[in-house]
Amino acid sequence: MARKLRMGMVGGGPGAFIGPVHKMAAELDGRMQLVAGAFSQSAERSKEAGASYGIDPARAYASYGEMFEAESKRADGIELVVIATPNSTHLPVAEAALATGIAVMSDKPATATYDQVLELEKVVAKAGLPYGLTHTYAGYQLVRDARAICASGELGEIRKVAVEYLQGWLSQPLESTGQKQAGWRVDPAVSGPGGCIGDIGTHAFHLLEYVTGLDVTALHGTLRSVVVGRKVDDDCTVLLKMANGAQGVLMASQIAAGEGNGLRIRVYGEKASVHWEQETPNTLTIRRNSGPDETRHAGMQYLSNDARAVMRLPGGHPEGYIEAFAVLYREFADWVTAWKAGGVHKAPATLPGIRAGVRGMRFIERAIESNRVGGWVEF
Amino acid sequence: MARKLRMGMVGGGPGAFIGPVHKMAAELDGRMQLVAGAFSQSAERSKEAGASYGIDPARAYASYGEMFEAESKRADGIELVVIATPNSTHLPVAEAALATGIAVMSDKPATATYDQVLELEKVVAKAGLPYGLTHTYAGYQLVRDARAICASGELGEIRKVAVEYLQGWLSQPLESTGQKQAGWRVDPAVSGPGGCIGDIGTHAFHLLEYVTGLDVTALHGTLRSVVVGRKVDDDCTVLLKMANGAQGVLMASQIAAGEGNGLRIRVYGEKASVHWEQETPNTLTIRRNSGPDETRHAGMQYLSNDARAVMRLPGGHPEGYIEAFAVLYREFADWVTAWKAGGVHKAPATLPGIRAGVRGMRFIERAIESNRVGGWVEF
Amino acid sequence: MARKLRMGMVGGGPGAFIGPVHKMAAELDGRMQLVAGAFSQSAERSKEAGASYGIDPARAYASYGEMFEAESKRADGIELVVIATPNSTHLPVAEAALATGIAVMSDKPATATYDQVLELEKVVAKAGLPYGLTHTYAGYQLVRDARAICASGELGEIRKVAVEYLQGWLSQPLESTGQKQAGWRVDPAVSGPGGCIGDIGTHAFHLLEYVTGLDVTALHGTLRSVVVGRKVDDDCTVLLKMANGAQGVLMASQIAAGEGNGLRIRVYGEKASVHWEQETPNTLTIRRNSGPDETRHAGMQYLSNDARAVMRLPGGHPEGYIEAFAVLYREFADWVTAWKAGGVHKAPATLPGIRAGVRGMRFIERAIESNRVGGWVEF
Amino acid sequence: MARKLRMGMVGGGPGAFIGPVHKMAAELDGRMQLVAGAFSQSAERSKEAGASYGIDPARAYASYGEMFEAESKRADGIELVVIATPNSTHLPVAEAALATGIAVMSDKPATATYDQVLELEKVVAKAGLPYGLTHTYAGYQLVRDARAICASGELGEIRKVAVEYLQGWLSQPLESTGQKQAGWRVDPAVSGPGGCIGDIGTHAFHLLEYVTGLDVTALHGTLRSVVVGRKVDDDCTVLLKMANGAQGVLMASQIAAGEGNGLRIRVYGEKASVHWEQETPNTLTIRRNSGPDETRHAGMQYLSNDARAVMRLPGGHPEGYIEAFAVLYREFADWVTAWKAGGVHKAPATLPGIRAGVRGMRFIERAIESNRVGGWVEF
Repeated sequence: MARKLRMGMVGGGPGAFIGPVHKMAAELDGRMQLVAGAFSQSAERSKEAGASYGIDPARAYASYGEMFEAESKRADGIELVVIATPNSTHLPVAEAALATGIAVMSDKPATATYDQVLELEKVVAKAGLPYGLTHTYAGYQLVRDARAICASGELGEIRKVAVEYLQGWLSQPLESTGQKQAGWRVDPAVSGPGGCIGDIGTHAFHLLEYVTGLDVTALHGTLRSVVVGRKVDDDCTVLLKMANGAQGVLMASQIAAGEGNGLRIRVYGEKASVHWEQETPNTLTIRRNSGPDETRHAGMQYLSNDARAVMRLPGGHPEGYIEAFAVLYREFADWVTAWKAGGVHKAPATLPGIRAGVRGMRFIERAIESNRVGGWVEF
Repeated sequence: MARKLRMGMVGGGPGAFIGPVHKMAAELDGRMQLVAGAFSQSAERSKEAGASYGIDPARAYASYGEMFEAESKRADGIELVVIATPNSTHLPVAEAALATGIAVMSDKPATATYDQVLELEKVVAKAGLPYGLTHTYAGYQLVRDARAICASGELGEIRKVAVEYLQGWLSQPLESTGQKQAGWRVDPAVSGPGGCIGDIGTHAFHLLEYVTGLDVTALHGTLRSVVVGRKVDDDCTVLLKMANGAQGVLMASQIAAGEGNGLRIRVYGEKASVHWEQETPNTLTIRRNSGPDETRHAGMQYLSNDARAVMRLPGGHPEGYIEAFAVLYREFADWVTAWKAGGVHKAPATLPGIRAGVRGMRFIERAIESNRVGGWVEF
Repeated sequence: MARKLRMGMVGGGPGAFIGPVHKMAAELDGRMQLVAGAFSQSAERSKEAGASYGIDPARAYASYGEMFEAESKRADGIELVVIATPNSTHLPVAEAALATGIAVMSDKPATATYDQVLELEKVVAKAGLPYGLTHTYAGYQLVRDARAICASGELGEIRKVAVEYLQGWLSQPLESTGQKQAGWRVDPAVSGPGGCIGDIGTHAFHLLEYVTGLDVTALHGTLRSVVVGRKVDDDCTVLLKMANGAQGVLMASQIAAGEGNGLRIRVYGEKASVHWEQETPNTLTIRRNSGPDETRHAGMQYLSNDARAVMRLPGGHPEGYIEAFAVLYREFADWVTAWKAGGVHKAPATLPGIRAGVRGMRFIERAIESNRVGGWVEF
Repeated sequence: MARKLRMGMVGGGPGAFIGPVHKMAAELDGRMQLVAGAFSQSAERSKEAGASYGIDPARAYASYGEMFEAESKRADGIELVVIATPNSTHLPVAEAALATGIAVMSDKPATATYDQVLELEKVVAKAGLPYGLTHTYAGYQLVRDARAICASGELGEIRKVAVEYLQGWLSQPLESTGQKQAGWRVDPAVSGPGGCIGDIGTHAFHLLEYVTGLDVTALHGTLRSVVVGRKVDDDCTVLLKMANGAQGVLMASQIAAGEGNGLRIRVYGEKASVHWEQETPNTLTIRRNSGPDETRHAGMQYLSNDARAVMRLPGGHPEGYIEAFAVLYREFADWVTAWKAGGVHKAPATLPGIRAGVRGMRFIERAIESNRVGGWVEF
């Protein structure tokens, strides 16, 4: 096994659900270790988080700037950083990291605005360093299988896609109760102009393009703020046209009462369709007009090569969200390792990166524009 | 038990799947009996069908005109007629029946065009006779329960609706093989200007308004003909606005490979949502943000009054499509019986009738218009 | 279509759930018509029931003896009779009917005791008349498919079977509340020595032998009366050995709180297994060690010949309990028609008859004996 | 966060699926770190495994004896050891570890024979050191919830239990192909006298007692070797009596073709029942006679305290097998930490330990004895 890469984190301090998940996912396959962090803008809280993560107290910093500077001077300084902060800081943190020669794994969406991501794209290109984006769901074994099935032509030409990401947790004005997770997500100054469309709509959008291998070329979006007084959208429906002429519909909502984390995709081709749901991630169904449905199970040898490449357990042993997340980290580790080895390195084809970041931000921007004009817009 | 009503049928001749289903459904509860029919435009084939239905050969007619005339002269003539022909004949047959004093149960959509249904509306109003429309799915016990749940306020104000009706059987150009069912459905001269939007989109639209009790007030539809050479739409996605400000999306497709008869509805309110699927019609799920999901089973005493009113079997004994259909016939029989009794009679609140017919045709017309202009239209 | 056969009913009076179901099922395919009945031991209640069924008041009799005598004198007398009474009367009614030259469709179990069924077997053989047994579940399309799959060898040699029939409705001493359905079922004088084992255990047993085509050769049963004071068993677990060396387990319970009508079967062969559940009867799953699961849907052309022979509706249109029941009636009608036509007639291979009746009663007797001795007994 | 405990492993060398799973599970919550191992009886292969696990080459030993000796001399020596070897070595390894003052986390079953476990029980008691047993499934959040539901009395008195563990992977004589996992499991010299009954039957048995809180008091088992030539059982059905008078059935099979890792439990009380399946571990259903089914989801605040205690992710984010495993490791870490702290320490109530080990081995012994005598035996 290769040496463990040294990882830092920005964000993920007390109260953040996603920080510990990043750590668990990054370390699951033994390829990385969290050794430093700027977990909070409060020095004290950053120390507190550092202790909970079990890292050297000296490496729990009060700001990312401080961390990058200090770590770059250490022989055992961090080689990559995870950005787990609200959207508005993604760009400056990524820029600072890359400028210091540290690879970046960023939470999505890539930035808060489309302009920012165009800037980031240039920075990444110039730096020539690994940049990954945590579209976690792309790490599920059966999402990999669905992608391979689409690519194989088994469905025939793709004609229709339905993707949805439905949650219910923002059905009430949770932000007015001081709930931290809700608070920043519905504050345009922090999250950017998109609310639900950026927070989860981008996941659905990415999954759609990732699984089908097709680019969206036009869309017509309807974005609403259902909860009175909310400053960003919380319910979105987007009609889509794809590069090959297929059409689709994307629903994203955070006011869909009773839904947990309902990310689902269905792809209809000329001959068959493929169906997958995130809450039961270990099965995938292919349906055909002329034969029985086929349900494929994670962990089985009959799956596609891409699915088998990310299996950890035999069939019948469920893998979950952390494992999917860890697949992205494993692929990112491969990339960082190749980069550190000094040779030519390039992004693994299956790992979401800067292109996914740009497209996701474009999606937000186009959906908002479409909603503004009340009609179709080119992508 | 009341005397059995005497029923005639127009259409339903050899090769039609729906004719025998009408008979089974109409007769299931012992309230009606098929005694006459103009099953085909060919006298010979009409006789053949009559024999297969076990009716008096003298009452298997070569045309509906002949049937209405002959039956109106009999003391035991038909009291109601089922119209089971392609769309373009619905209006003339219904007009002729009503003019002869025969009640009408018509297949949906009510007519082939919106102008026709406006005419039919006047004819029905003037005749003052029972007129029912076979939106079969409205007869399912748990659709009745979903409707009662929405009306009860248990979900809170309705905010979002997702309804879909997905089939795969027209994925290929089946009409070019001489398949009869496919043939007329994709011929605008027979089906009217709507293809999929009329054939199944209207079912989804009806279910939406029926369950929520809300009218659609505006829509934006995208209608496509995916199969090359097809003259009508075969894949539709329609964004919807409802009278209370709720929004929704309706998908209807006949090129969704692998789908059978996938009619599904989800209604999201402020507090909870309700979920139902036609292919597993004997359960319904309520989901809440703050508590477990609740799955309700057909045949159980805890269901709403409206659901219990249409139960035939105890819990755990599945009812199906024919039983749902028979519920509509039973309600229609009540109405016809009241009418024949000579008193004031009116349509049962739960039975789709001419209003549903007008709205359904309006839906087709508006969806096509919206698709033409590429934007939202008022309903 | 053949002439409708004339049917009588014994039992099925006010309060009986199964009477109207018999009528609906028998008449669904237009092959029979209920024209007479001895619906209750009370003349008045029998008239009342007759009226509710819409039959000629003169043909609602106060006893089955009266009915058989009167009907046998009519030119249009009944040709077959349905026995829908509690178990203890099955034998005398069947004997009387057969002696009068009337074919018999009997509720299960065939009789109240094993001795009785041996007598019935002789009577049926001597009479040479059609005798059917309403193991309703054998009429489901996908039970037919499961049976064909087992027979085809697709599973390889059958090794293991798990069948269960779980209900919860007798979790409490319902019989002490005067509930009629519960009352007779737990009264050994009426139901026979078996309670749950006879009422639903026989259904599970029949399904097992019907689907696998294998006879049970030995069993070890544990029968309990869980509800205090109950005079018959209400919870049973039976280990089974089959003719080919396969083994199985059968669970039947009426105190399985929360279960509705949970009849389920799984058959494991050398290569694959087949899974079916009555509450979702329109799908069946085949599972294999080396490939994806296969889910088959009712109404599809890829099903076995035996399944396709009993389809009424295209795929995606659910059939239910009444339709399954009607399949048995349709097959019985074929048989009665052949018999009335005067030629050689024999039981359709797919219709449960006297052999199933004898084996079912033997099953009850053996299970009770095994429970008594506390060990394995030969079948 | 507490200091990471230092962990060693015995077994888990090249080709063993379970070794890396132990490491991932043990390290997931940051409470332990694998630092040494005797991964194989071949020194070379142990080194190879050590490298793949990323440990110091000097701490990859050729035997457990060597490891315990060397590590006990280090200031940073291992504090606990995971035993991931075939059954026959569990006892000697555990004895050696405990004798050296190293806590033990052992794969199940605890030993190869019942006599051995009685010896182990004494050794554990005498040593006074933490001893845990990897009944992994006890770590699932919703198994904890099911256990709490049973304990709460919500189901009423428990009456009936059905537990099953069905796999298909030994449907063919895989052992004759040289497959390592199959090989030792069907070799009585290594696995002990029980095959399937020990390998997975003990998991089902443990889950039954763990969830219900009831001890088995008698059983009647049927054990078969279905695959010709196999020396141990591969298909088992066991009738059970519980301490409160409830009865149950346990099925365990490794020749159930098409099954993956089908561990399922259903517990029926007077008022309601609870249902859980390992392959979809993130939901649990409660069914009642008088109300709708209730489906509970992992990650939700309405779950029992015991379930909430082991949540890592919010609702809708699936946890899987590794996370369940990690729950046991986390609880074991708490125990070991308390022990190392020098105070009184005792096993967490929710962590399977030596008592579970003894009962599991007793279960194997009793099932085999029951099968031998062909009847019921006391437990």
